[in-house]
Amino acid sequence: MYDLIILGGGPAGYNAAERAAHEKMKVLLFEGNALGGVCLNEGCIPTKTFLYSAKIYDYAKHSADYGVNFDGAKIDHNFVVDRKNKVRSTLVGGIQATLKKAGVEVISSFAAIKGKSAEGFTVSADGKDYDAKQLLICTGSQAAVPPIPGLRESITAGFGMTNHEILDLREVPKKLVVIGGGVIGLEMASYFNSIGSKVTVIEMMDHIGGPTDGEISKILYKNYLKKGVEFKLGAKVVSVNKNSVSYELDGKTEEAPADKVLISIGRRANTANIGLESIGVLTERGAIVTDDFGRTNVPGVWAAGDVNGKSMLAHTAYREGEVCVNNMCGKKDRIYYNAIPSVIYTNPEVGAVGETTESVKAKGIDAEVHSFTLKYSGRYIAENEGGDGILKIIVDKKHKNILGVHMIGTYASEMIYGAAMMVGSEMRPEDVQKFVFPHPTVCEVLREGVFMI
Amino acid sequence: MYDLIILGGGPAGYNAAERAAHEKMKVLLFEGNALGGVCLNEGCIPTKTFLYSAKIYDYAKHSADYGVNFDGAKIDHNFVVDRKNKVRSTLVGGIQATLKKAGVEVISSFAAIKGKSAEGFTVSADGKDYDAKQLLICTGSQAAVPPIPGLRESITAGFGMTNHEILDLREVPKKLVVIGGGVIGLEMASYFNSIGSKVTVIEMMDHIGGPTDGEISKILYKNYLKKGVEFKLGAKVVSVNKNSVSYELDGKTEEAPADKVLISIGRRANTANIGLESIGVLTERGAIVTDDFGRTNVPGVWAAGDVNGKSMLAHTAYREGEVCVNNMCGKKDRIYYNAIPSVIYTNPEVGAVGETTESVKAKGIDAEVHSFTLKYSGRYIAENEGGDGILKIIVDKKHKNILGVHMIGTYASEMIYGAAMMVGSEMRPEDVQKFVFPHPTVCEVLREGVFMI
Repeated sequence: MYDLIILGGGPAGYNAAERAAHEKMKVLLFEGNALGGVCLNEGCIPTKTFLYSAKIYDYAKHSADYGVNFDGAKIDHNFVVDRKNKVRSTLVGGIQATLKKAGVEVISSFAAIKGKSAEGFTVSADGKDYDAKQLLICTGSQAAVPPIPGLRESITAGFGMTNHEILDLREVPKKLVVIGGGVIGLEMASYFNSIGSKVTVIEMMDHIGGPTDGEISKILYKNYLKKGVEFKLGAKVVSVNKNSVSYELDGKTEEAPADKVLISIGRRANTANIGLESIGVLTERGAIVTDDFGRTNVPGVWAAGDVNGKSMLAHTAYREGEVCVNNMCGKKDRIYYNAIPSVIYTNPEVGAVGETTESVKAKGIDAEVHSFTLKYSGRYIAENEGGDGILKIIVDKKHKNILGVHMIGTYASEMIYGAAMMVGSEMRPEDVQKFVFPHPTVCEVLREGVFMI
Repeated sequence: MYDLIILGGGPAGYNAAERAAHEKMKVLLFEGNALGGVCLNEGCIPTKTFLYSAKIYDYAKHSADYGVNFDGAKIDHNFVVDRKNKVRSTLVGGIQATLKKAGVEVISSFAAIKGKSAEGFTVSADGKDYDAKQLLICTGSQAAVPPIPGLRESITAGFGMTNHEILDLREVPKKLVVIGGGVIGLEMASYFNSIGSKVTVIEMMDHIGGPTDGEISKILYKNYLKKGVEFKLGAKVVSVNKNSVSYELDGKTEEAPADKVLISIGRRANTANIGLESIGVLTERGAIVTDDFGRTNVPGVWAAGDVNGKSMLAHTAYREGEVCVNNMCGKKDRIYYNAIPSVIYTNPEVGAVGETTESVKAKGIDAEVHSFTLKYSGRYIAENEGGDGILKIIVDKKHKNILGVHMIGTYASEMIYGAAMMVGSEMRPEDVQKFVFPHPTVCEVLREGVFMI
């Protein structure tokens, strides 16, 4: 009898396992693929390894602007893939070691819920049964593959790829078509564009970056255009063919030639074949329904991470796992979904948290939107020849607190956590002014911005 | 009659001028050199321009670790100096435009206080008198040049340099001796080492980086050693000669050969020849005495920035200027000197705020010191082959709040402001855990760290 059985060893599962063991719970974790989940094995970490090499290569291409000169820079994509695998192994090893040290039992199999037991729940894996007082479901998500003619077949044939396959692609495709201009699509478009592919992104909406603030999305778009990425916005894919993708745009059907196709049109929660129905766990549009405490409709059954369909971000999963464990132990805790930061790791980077210009309009919130150039920062000017980065601050008109912060430019990824603290603790601009920010930094624009509001 | 006369247009002065104009005050600002002060003209910004080029060059040297290859990278130091001047002009122009737009009157002369007047104070410049109700003194600091035999003469001869001269040096010295291993010395040592000088740093203390946390200072030291910088620690300079510097170490006198010498052993406040004595402004060890509200001992006379000898950092000056203006206008405001971040912009970067391991011991504060490797961050691993960065969190044992955060590694400069918010608002580790940090980032180590405490 375990105190807790966890299904899935991604960011939600492995973190919850460690936290629960820390709280002296007897924990069993099932993971049929590799520990670390999509994030570590075919998501966040591998893509960042790729993008860092691309950044170094981009630096090399533009280094003459800063007085550094040399001949014939080349990027070795095979080396980058090998290095990605090495980084991944290091990190998977790290999680294994951490869980072992914490005393978490790990079984490398897929498990499914079998039903309720006398004291809790029964889970089955490889024909064996395991009992636990509580269950935490962290089975994650997978790339959505909609019923577009030829799409599934293209993946079988190795012509179409999801995030799973593209990260092990050894050759650099001459022509890469990316279906979907969300974060995953953009990051891969950016990498392959940098290393020499001719990239075309086909996106259904009239803008890229999904829920990204509109003004930021436009600047990002301009930057990609300048780098040579081609976009088909407001275009609907109608079929994936042998060497091309057909799409409808302005009522006409056109064709984008391709050597490889990346499908990145969203992710769907993994709720099938894990026995949810055996104990009546409620799902909605394919995702497990949870509240801000991580509870499902079944007492003693919790869910965290992509499987709840809420945020589909590793750091949300991580925090949700933590919240579930705290609540299991009677330490009341909740997650605030209004202050979750997100990042696009391309060059330039995008960092965002909270409400956008568009979301406050949609929700009818009376808010002020302030936009500042990053050129208020001496460091930004010193480091970005021709940079067009901006920072936006969105403030509630009535309560005067900061509802959202959005930026595009260098270091956005490492700065946005502080803005998340501002949004999360409902700071007003004058509260931020009490703090001293180091000079010269790009983050100073945030402080200068709150003064100008 | 002005509401406010400001002496000095560096970060304290130009910011205070803008803020005061914003508060509808009639402001006159005197600056005999260039607007922007040392920071913008021969400090923060120029050095960061240099260091960014060095960083790009360092990236180029190590790019093969990330799969990027090319031939014969070279850095063009002359180009870097020209670019520095361009960046500086852009920023000086920006301050000019901002002050003009705000309605601040600027006179490009040095001014001195003449005495009290009927309604306030009289200031004199170029033989003309100006009256104001209040005075703000922001005359800054200059490099200290102690009475070491041959030191002053070496500067006259162009062999010795301070921060003022070195930033316009056109040739790359084969052998550079740096006297003083504080922040300025280290940043210049790092730059000239990167671009090919043989650099020797002579430092009186047994460690580099001044008040930097000891463990961080040691890691920084190791990194410089690996890059080929030579150090003479615990060494006292006895004379600056024609082509060398003599120093005493372990009771023996030795000589470091040099083509150029940088003197960076501290800065002293500019309090001479500005008429402080005419109105009885109190100084101590050459700096104007101020309180946390920016007040001097003379009602109506305020001082901000390096001239008060407190922190000698541009961002402190900036905030002090703001605090003075707020208090002048009756908006009670104060500066918290316990939460001022500081940064060393070499590669690796150092970011620090609050108490160190050494300072809590010295003050007798009962504190826990926690140290974490940055390898807890997947991004750090993905971006730093062989990285040895750490993060330290110092917590008050009794009150449980975070007293200090110190880190060495990538992005430290842009992350530390969030830690300054934690220290400044007396957060406890569990308060930080309520916030979600983006993944994968280096700043996550901060969140992971507070969990492990």
